Amino acid sequence: MRFLTIDSVNNEKIKHAVKLSSNAKYRRECGAFFLEGLRLCRDAAESAADIITLFFTEDAYEKYTHDIERIAGKAETAYLISAACANKLSDTKTSQGVFLICGFPLLADESEIDTNGKYIALESIQDPSNLGAVCRTAEALGIDGAVLCGCCDVFNPKAQRSAMGSLLRLKIIKTDDLSSLILKLKDRSMTVLATTPDSRAKSVTEIDMTGGVLAVIGNEGNGVSQEIFDLCDLVTIPMKGRAESLNASMAAALVMWEMMR
Amino acid sequence: MRFLTIDSVNNEKIKHAVKLSSNAKYRRECGAFFLEGLRLCRDAAESAADIITLFFTEDAYEKYTHDIERIAGKAETAYLISAACANKLSDTKTSQGVFLICGFPLLADESEIDTNGKYIALESIQDPSNLGAVCRTAEALGIDGAVLCGCCDVFNPKAQRSAMGSLLRLKIIKTDDLSSLILKLKDRSMTVLATTPDSRAKSVTEIDMTGGVLAVIGNEGNGVSQEIFDLCDLVTIPMKGRAESLNASMAAALVMWEMMR
Repeated sequence: MRFLTIDSVNNEKIKHAVKLSSNAKYRRECGAFFLEGLRLCRDAAESAADIITLFFTEDAYEKYTHDIERIAGKAETAYLISAACANKLSDTKTSQGVFLICGFPLLADESEIDTNGKYIALESIQDPSNLGAVCRTAEALGIDGAVLCGCCDVFNPKAQRSAMGSLLRLKIIKTDDLSSLILKLKDRSMTVLATTPDSRAKSVTEIDMTGGVLAVIGNEGNGVSQEIFDLCDLVTIPMKGRAESLNASMAAALVMWEMMR
Repeated sequence: MRFLTIDSVNNEKIKHAVKLSSNAKYRRECGAFFLEGLRLCRDAAESAADIITLFFTEDAYEKYTHDIERIAGKAETAYLISAACANKLSDTKTSQGVFLICGFPLLADESEIDTNGKYIALESIQDPSNLGAVCRTAEALGIDGAVLCGCCDVFNPKAQRSAMGSLLRLKIIKTDDLSSLILKLKDRSMTVLATTPDSRAKSVTEIDMTGGVLAVIGNEGNGVSQEIFDLCDLVTIPMKGRAESLNASMAAALVMWEMMR
């Protein structure tokens, strides 16, 4: 295969990629996002996302020839870039030299929520690594989808990296009005739970989770908002040590585990 | 209170602190380690560790006067340092300007393992953030202690940070010979489990964990070593999605949760 080449870090396509990597508003304007790393790029190429531009270094091509040719085959354009360009694009010290610009995959619609399924809702999760980690665990445990409200950008490169591709496969539903969605789902007989550190709440091990369930996980510092709390059945994760010692993604993992157990 | 001051980043005490922060061998030679952040420093001051040196900036003193005076009261020496020094010491972009050098706390001895208790063993965990996260969850769930074999340094600042103080409170037992320890604990009727992605193993939900249990979590990439596997009852975490999607600290959290459930 022969590829176009880019040597200069001042090339417009490199600048565009850097801006997609660092700027959520620019990502929304372009309807595109930036990924780094062979495995993530491979996952993206197998997902429903549009594969717009592939960048790779000569070293990467030597090491991962087969993978890169396959990804390049799905991309609109593929560029062989200099080590200096890779360094500019990379967020890590030991870059694999493989990068991708993808179009936003279509998110799922509220109407696609199966009211007999198991879902997690994330309210105002701010740390992209937490968002990614929760979605990664959700996929592993077989959760049907994640509802996001007021969270950091799912197309943030850190979220994508810690999600290990799960954000490209898991059903993601975004909403600006979690309250209304919860009311609708409750009308359709779904159990809607919110986690609280309050030990007077029912233990997550004692709640009936046989039917459709949506479990809301709140912001890292402040937990679930009062407005949402008032609409939900409250559950707590019984703890013996310091309550503050369970971080948001671990709490989410335990709740999802109990939902699927 | 009046404090000694350090202005120059070339001061020997600043250099000593930086080296403690970055060099595990130097930490062992000195029997001391370095912590950053108000909360961690406060946790350390309340722990059994020797508090050797406190460093803080003027800004930090203004914001956290009460806390800093309390930590300073426990420290052998306390230094008011310049912003340049704080910048040199800090691992983060938005430093709180509070740093501590502590002596190694005494680790627990194998003989202190209560054979009716619940313990986790970490074999060759290499990522300090994973080590810290697992110990943080262990403390939250009420696990009695953690056995470490071949892991990264518990006094690594990243491990301490992600542990949120739990490494200073949880019972930590270090061993170079996990096999012998496992044999001794089995002789004393403890159940010793190792986690495996192999779906033919018994589910973690079906194992009797009423008595004393030690659960071994293996290296992030390779899992538990064959030598240890051969000594353990195997358990698996049943998954519906991609098995690879459950990272080491999430797997550890689910196993500990089932031990304590």
